[in-house]
Amino acid sequence: MTKKDAVVSHIGVAVSDLAAAVAFYRDVLGVEPAPAESADGATIVSLPFGQTAVELLIPEMPDSPVARFLARRGPGIHHICFRVPNLDEALVRCRDHGYRLVDEQPRPGAGGHRVAFLHPKSTAGILLELTE
Amino acid sequence: MTKKDAVVSHIGVAVSDLAAAVAFYRDVLGVEPAPAESADGATIVSLPFGQTAVELLIPEMPDSPVARFLARRGPGIHHICFRVPNLDEALVRCRDHGYRLVDEQPRPGAGGHRVAFLHPKSTAGILLELTE
Repeated sequence: MTKKDAVVSHIGVAVSDLAAAVAFYRDVLGVEPAPAESADGATIVSLPFGQTAVELLIPEMPDSPVARFLARRGPGIHHICFRVPNLDEALVRCRDHGYRLVDEQPRPGAGGHRVAFLHPKSTAGILLELTE
Repeated sequence: MTKKDAVVSHIGVAVSDLAAAVAFYRDVLGVEPAPAESADGATIVSLPFGQTAVELLIPEMPDSPVARFLARRGPGIHHICFRVPNLDEALVRCRDHGYRLVDEQPRPGAGGHRVAFLHPKSTAGILLELTE
C-alpha cells in the first residue's frame, strides 16, 4: 500500500446527552450503535457507516479531554481520525514536516488499535488522530 | 435501497489558513485537493478519502455561516454531511421525530446536489447536513 490509502476511520463527536444523539442516527438514518467502549476517560459509542464511523464521546470523569472540550465549547465535533497503512511512517512524515505531536509514540486507543494524536496548534486548529 | 444505506458524504472543516490545512493532507496523508468550488458564501476545497471526503471551508464574505463560525469558535470541524438514498423521505422522518430543520425543503448545495441542514439545537449541538 502507498500513503495514498489513508481513509477516514471515524469522526469523534462530544455529546452531553447520549440518548438524544443516538436517537437521531436510529430514527432518521436507520443506524444502530455498537456496544459501548472506553478510552481516554470517555465512553465511546460507535455508529458504523461503511468504512467509516461516527464515534459519540461521553466523558466519564470531569478532568478528561472530552469533559474539558464540552465545558469550553459545548457539544460538537471533537476530532477526525485517519487510518493509515503504516502509523510509524506517518509519524516520521509528521516530524519531517514540522507537525507537533501530542503522542510522540503510538499508544493503545479504543479497541486496542495503535493511535497518535497531532497537536491542533500545528494543524490549523483541528484535532487529528492517526491510527493504522 | 433501505434507509440503512446512509454514508458519510463529507466532513466540513472551517479553516482560516487554507494553505496550512491543505499542506497536512498532502505532506502526511498523500491526498491531493480537488479544484475549489463555492457554496453558501464559502470556498470549498475537497480532499477525497474513498467514499467520504474532508471539505475545507474558507469564508468568502464576513457575514457567511462559516465566517460566523470562525469568529465565534475559531478553526474547527463545522458539520457532518450524510448521503441518504432518498432525501425527501429522510426529511419526513426528521419531521416525524421532531427534529428541527434549517431547510424545510431541499436546496442546491456544492456540486449542484440537493441538500438540507438540520438545526443543531435539535441534534445535541451538532450541525448535520443531509444530501442524496
